[in-house]
Amino acid sequence: MPHPLDLSLYLVTNSEQCHAAGRSVAETVALAVEGGVTVVQVREKDASARDFLATVASVAEVLPAHIPLLVNDRVDVYLAARAAGHPVAGVHIGQSELPAPLVRQLIGADAVLGISAATPESLAEAQASGVVDYVGMGPLNTTTTKRNAPPAIGLPSLAALRRLTHLPAVAIGGVGMADMQPLRAAGFDGAAVVSAICKASDPRAAAAALKACWQSHT
Amino acid sequence: MPHPLDLSLYLVTNSEQCHAAGRSVAETVALAVEGGVTVVQVREKDASARDFLATVASVAEVLPAHIPLLVNDRVDVYLAARAAGHPVAGVHIGQSELPAPLVRQLIGADAVLGISAATPESLAEAQASGVVDYVGMGPLNTTTTKRNAPPAIGLPSLAALRRLTHLPAVAIGGVGMADMQPLRAAGFDGAAVVSAICKASDPRAAAAALKACWQSHT
Repeated sequence: MPHPLDLSLYLVTNSEQCHAAGRSVAETVALAVEGGVTVVQVREKDASARDFLATVASVAEVLPAHIPLLVNDRVDVYLAARAAGHPVAGVHIGQSELPAPLVRQLIGADAVLGISAATPESLAEAQASGVVDYVGMGPLNTTTTKRNAPPAIGLPSLAALRRLTHLPAVAIGGVGMADMQPLRAAGFDGAAVVSAICKASDPRAAAAALKACWQSHT
Repeated sequence: MPHPLDLSLYLVTNSEQCHAAGRSVAETVALAVEGGVTVVQVREKDASARDFLATVASVAEVLPAHIPLLVNDRVDVYLAARAAGHPVAGVHIGQSELPAPLVRQLIGADAVLGISAATPESLAEAQASGVVDYVGMGPLNTTTTKRNAPPAIGLPSLAALRRLTHLPAVAIGGVGMADMQPLRAAGFDGAAVVSAICKASDPRAAAAALKACWQSHT
């Protein structure tokens, strides 16, 4: 990991939700960062690589330099964005995507590499690989954002999973305001949100409220 | 282009069709190459990157060294296969995928880069980029292999498109036995087939018959 990542409020973008709320992905991100988002992952499940790259470029343009921009799953889109001169920090790789050691070879030692791990086995594999900077765990709650999402794990099991690794970890999956304190209490380094920000009428205020909940933990 | 490519009988794989015919993709490829296929492009529209990589690896294992293995669209899967030591030759990139100059940067000068071009504009762009080794043009006929495929172009228009470029060109889209001679007469360097081989009860015989039709042109 190039620098300590502040994973506390981790935004995963959803273009349908942003557009339905009357904003572009980049506009949503810009507001959310003003509200306190600390990491942005651009995720596009249905877009062509060309459109995905365009969205990454548009987000890169509005993002302050200290906020890491991660690309979901498509390592080639990340590499293309980097080759085109956009300040992208790394990738987040799902469980059925390319194996972490190969991804690390492709992106190099300095890029951020996050992976999804929802079972003790995948977590052990991620940790043993020695190439992963953080893990995403979920889904915490039932989510409608991601099609074919696995069933919700729930907080007690997710907390048990979190205790199995020393890697930085963020929870994901239907995460809302009420989850922030319990997640922090469970030892998570951050919470990843999608609809709580992308669907919000005011993404800046939504991010600020989520951040305040996170920080209110003592 | 690292070496003169023999594009004459260009197989694009379709795993559903191979499996429906009772064979793996690799088994189909092995038989088709015995029958005379000269290039193999592994295409997976729905597979995860991990499964796509596994299919590429399985095909690489059965492919003779002189037959180039190309990966469809996913430049990261190609790069991962290469990093894992599989003998992959390059990529074929669709029209809504990453721009050719960026792809060339990612794969390097020695890899094969083919792109799809169905309009004079996209063809001119491909040619002007100076980084493309060959173009795929189509669909020649109506095809059910590819969902949301654009309407068939037909031979006269495809032949006119082919005359617009000095780049090597293959035709694709519902290509069958009866198309081989007309395509060669129209100046194509090869014909790309999917179902004519993947759905065949005997892929070796199907490839040999297609090859014979191609070669019978005088």
